[in-house]
Amino acid sequence: MADYHKPDQQTLQALKNIASRLRINSIKATTAAGSGHPTSCCSIAEIMSVLFFHTMKYRPEDPRNPNNDRFILSKGHAAPILYAVWAEVGFLKENELLNLRKIESILEGHPVPKQQFVDVATGSLGQGLGAACGMAYTGKHFDKASYRVFCLLGDGELSEGSVWEAMAFASYYQLNNLVAILDINRLGQSDPTPLQHHVEKYQRRCEAFGWHAAVVDGHNVEELCKVLGQTRHQPLAIIAKTMKGKGIPAAEDKMGWHGKPLSKDMAESVIKELQGRIVSCSKRISPSPPNEDASPVSLRNVRMPSEPSFKVGDKIATRKAYGMALAKLGRNNDHVVVLDGDTKNSTFSELFKNEHPDRYVECFIAEQNMVSVAIGCAVRERNVVFASTFATFFSRAYDQLRMAAISESNINVCGSHCGISIGEDGPSQMGLEDLAMFRAIPTATIFYPSDGVSAEKAVELAANTKGLCFIRTSRPENNIIYNSREDFHVGQAKVVYKSSEDHVTVVAAGVTLHEAFAAAEQLKKEKIHLRLIDPFTIKPLDGKTIIDNARATRGRIITVEDHYYEGGLGEAVCSAVVNENGFTVHRLAVSQVPRSGKAHELLQAFGIDRDSIVQAVHKMLSGSANSK
Amino acid sequence: MADYHKPDQQTLQALKNIASRLRINSIKATTAAGSGHPTSCCSIAEIMSVLFFHTMKYRPEDPRNPNNDRFILSKGHAAPILYAVWAEVGFLKENELLNLRKIESILEGHPVPKQQFVDVATGSLGQGLGAACGMAYTGKHFDKASYRVFCLLGDGELSEGSVWEAMAFASYYQLNNLVAILDINRLGQSDPTPLQHHVEKYQRRCEAFGWHAAVVDGHNVEELCKVLGQTRHQPLAIIAKTMKGKGIPAAEDKMGWHGKPLSKDMAESVIKELQGRIVSCSKRISPSPPNEDASPVSLRNVRMPSEPSFKVGDKIATRKAYGMALAKLGRNNDHVVVLDGDTKNSTFSELFKNEHPDRYVECFIAEQNMVSVAIGCAVRERNVVFASTFATFFSRAYDQLRMAAISESNINVCGSHCGISIGEDGPSQMGLEDLAMFRAIPTATIFYPSDGVSAEKAVELAANTKGLCFIRTSRPENNIIYNSREDFHVGQAKVVYKSSEDHVTVVAAGVTLHEAFAAAEQLKKEKIHLRLIDPFTIKPLDGKTIIDNARATRGRIITVEDHYYEGGLGEAVCSAVVNENGFTVHRLAVSQVPRSGKAHELLQAFGIDRDSIVQAVHKMLSGSANSK
Repeated sequence: MADYHKPDQQTLQALKNIASRLRINSIKATTAAGSGHPTSCCSIAEIMSVLFFHTMKYRPEDPRNPNNDRFILSKGHAAPILYAVWAEVGFLKENELLNLRKIESILEGHPVPKQQFVDVATGSLGQGLGAACGMAYTGKHFDKASYRVFCLLGDGELSEGSVWEAMAFASYYQLNNLVAILDINRLGQSDPTPLQHHVEKYQRRCEAFGWHAAVVDGHNVEELCKVLGQTRHQPLAIIAKTMKGKGIPAAEDKMGWHGKPLSKDMAESVIKELQGRIVSCSKRISPSPPNEDASPVSLRNVRMPSEPSFKVGDKIATRKAYGMALAKLGRNNDHVVVLDGDTKNSTFSELFKNEHPDRYVECFIAEQNMVSVAIGCAVRERNVVFASTFATFFSRAYDQLRMAAISESNINVCGSHCGISIGEDGPSQMGLEDLAMFRAIPTATIFYPSDGVSAEKAVELAANTKGLCFIRTSRPENNIIYNSREDFHVGQAKVVYKSSEDHVTVVAAGVTLHEAFAAAEQLKKEKIHLRLIDPFTIKPLDGKTIIDNARATRGRIITVEDHYYEGGLGEAVCSAVVNENGFTVHRLAVSQVPRSGKAHELLQAFGIDRDSIVQAVHKMLSGSANSK
Repeated sequence: MADYHKPDQQTLQALKNIASRLRINSIKATTAAGSGHPTSCCSIAEIMSVLFFHTMKYRPEDPRNPNNDRFILSKGHAAPILYAVWAEVGFLKENELLNLRKIESILEGHPVPKQQFVDVATGSLGQGLGAACGMAYTGKHFDKASYRVFCLLGDGELSEGSVWEAMAFASYYQLNNLVAILDINRLGQSDPTPLQHHVEKYQRRCEAFGWHAAVVDGHNVEELCKVLGQTRHQPLAIIAKTMKGKGIPAAEDKMGWHGKPLSKDMAESVIKELQGRIVSCSKRISPSPPNEDASPVSLRNVRMPSEPSFKVGDKIATRKAYGMALAKLGRNNDHVVVLDGDTKNSTFSELFKNEHPDRYVECFIAEQNMVSVAIGCAVRERNVVFASTFATFFSRAYDQLRMAAISESNINVCGSHCGISIGEDGPSQMGLEDLAMFRAIPTATIFYPSDGVSAEKAVELAANTKGLCFIRTSRPENNIIYNSREDFHVGQAKVVYKSSEDHVTVVAAGVTLHEAFAAAEQLKKEKIHLRLIDPFTIKPLDGKTIIDNARATRGRIITVEDHYYEGGLGEAVCSAVVNENGFTVHRLAVSQVPRSGKAHELLQAFGIDRDSIVQAVHKMLSGSANSK
């Protein structure tokens, strides 16, 4: 602590004054809005004041400057005090604060990145620290810059396991540029928190997870200045004992005040009292500027160094082609970063690690944190991030993925081991809901490559596509069907098998496309001709190509997918063609929880193999097709 | 430790012999299957031996006996050794073990409840302890019985935050009938675990989370007998230092052996060596029988004590009607149990708590664990469980919900605050993907009540419907539209507005049904008549009623939903009617990440309010309807 210079009394008084003004503006804004969380703001007024006016180094006029210290308000419902801070530094007009939560204002109920000073959206609790880990990892290991990352968490959200995933990650990687401030205000939404004001228990938990943990009075600006000035070899947790509603006498440390604005009268009298605490002082304090040591990064035009090297007829699993593609993409592009959750030898992201070990981040078996770290690595356009695990294990991180859309995050995730075609491991390892899950994310693009060439193209396209990209890969080895010069685009399907006299259009992807090829060969012997479509992206779906081709087969469409019936390829096709006259869609998909068995046995047992397609075609042509 | 009786040498030798046989059978089975995780089995051979042949009290011939001690293999990939145990006690034939992972065998790659000795499926890591918490809570607080719950976890899965949610829950509720055994074998799938063999760090983490934690040599049967015999006032964590692949010299404590069966030759020589370690001993040990103190429970025919008390035209939010219904259902049925994640004053589950405090379980802000606890409470048909939070926060527990289907679990979950109609809080709090998410769970039934009466009926039906039931409730107050004697059934839609000259059929639910009513009244003035359908359940969807009624409106259908376009009501309808000739479907739904604002402003801005319906009807009737 030799480097700690105690702030002078003027500075301390100025920080206290700022805290009072932040309280006043939080109360004003929520009372004007008629909703919001003033008491959750009031517990952190001194913390925010010291952070933004004493500790953090940043350019208040340029909140996204890459050199700035970062701040994440994990307890997003305290948004009004974050907005009050940015009014206090002059970035927002104070008047604008009164438009909180209005449809025409950017000041939403919870932080969103349409606000320049927000990197990741918060509001679903327990997610801020994981993103902060990604930002701190980037600062320390990729940017090698001196900015620090501060994350403010509520005590209610400390019940979320994702917080402890992040805690473990931060200490494992010794992210000593990361500071977590825990606002221990004792009260949750509907009950006291489990540990209430037992700050020593929080301290023990943080220490057990490898952090340096310090307990402070969260309303004492001097203590806060001192503890926030520390640097350590470990990440630093500041356990701030606070009062919810501090400064609002009727609400202070009381249940029943969560998410409730003050009435106008009450607000007026509280504000009056708070104004009375502001002691005029000569010192005007402003944030210190950051060190200029985070180099500019360009993530434009991330291209493969060469065309795919596969030959038509070669066999490779798309999961392996994914890993090879990552390694290749990393050769020309230093900002390609890859994460995995201890499945790298199954997803084949280890091929990237082998070639670019410094840009691989092992996240261990903590998928929620892996996605949050990916989001953190991608903010301020510092990295092109790919994160992989089994497709079905992304269900573990669905809330994080949902929030990635709200965060306008550009991340790429790859889920291997989709569907029943993984075989013996059984249903717990089979991704059968992943298409439904990712389709319902508004910013998502879904690639479902069917061979090695398209898998490699998907990786390149994903790296250059905004929003959340999901690549669905398969375990079995299948034929290369595309020439390496084939051109792929998002939203553009490929007709991969056709004649002038086709009877039925089959839309299939991944292993089922290869089953469809086999069915087509078999049916050809009976002079029945199939037209096969590889959609390449499931979202957006190329409805036009499907409709145009199905017209040539009298509107007859069969969809086949290694996924449950709901929300996948078949439903996407139904929605695309529902208004076409005279179209018939027959869907083949998995209808119930599957089981262990060999891949080909399961494809057959669950009705998505070549024979099932042949049967469906016969049925459809005999006019007795029952659509499910 | 006064009550500890050291086992005699014969017993200890018998336990060692069993451990060797368990290793042998695990190796034999995985080598026969050609896949599986023998090394993950071998690290826990002594633990399994002592647990099942010394510590646990149960009837081996009746694995689901309610009095039995419970066991959950959270590291589900070690399934072969669990099967070997049940062969050792005589419940399975030893020969059957060689059918591991075959399509015709019940011995799947990971534990599933088609095996009588499995209560919850495992295989997605980090979920066992939460379910064990639900079972232990049930044993201690509901059954008030003496059975204990044992959960065996791997060290890889200790990176999952859900484990620490469960740890916090167990200590908060002082579940001293719960024992977690942590198999610290140092090696994950693709890398050593973050803490490797630092057992003292695990101990510190468990203690910080309020457990009594003891470190033992996991291969020493005597130490295990001693530590597993302990009872405490806290839950007990046994941190067992083990070797992955113990007993397989070439694989012991070595990377590169995860999920790899031994070759036939290698298996043969290892088995020979293991057999050599078996010392014949006179003592034959069998499990001790349990205390018979868990009373029988019947969950049949759980009925409401009376009809709903709402009157047509009254206003109530379905979320509030849900809470009232729970409280009412609890009056006649002692086994109705309710969980919430610190949102009980928003979901209104607090109405149940107020009336039946002993059957309410506060799970705090840890949705993953809440769902796992619900699953645990429901096993062996001990309780009818309802768990609630905001609809969108179930995305946090999607993996647990997915596994609930594989577990054949009967649980009911209610998600409030669906859609943009929640207003000012903004997108992080809005459930807009929940229908997609739950539809893609094969065992799910989805209720989407549109008024208080149907909400109450949904609660009663859910209590009596097998599988996973999801009830979607809304924040705004809306009119009661049903008479209290109206009869509701799963999969049966209601035509709520019709005439003999209807032009368009509108399918809507929740707030959008009320918008549709308003649109119908408005259009009536123009002599345009709408037929309105309330689907009541989204899954199964009553396609027949929709089709029959849409025929009467020349196939014209408009769907309106407070949900994203993908995977929700509109797509379900498209899939149901796609093969009807001459049908036209126009879908209204939310197309992008929304924002804060007043509910009615947002309904309008995102095109799902009364005016949008009116416009869509006009468009459709003018023949220019563009379906999305």
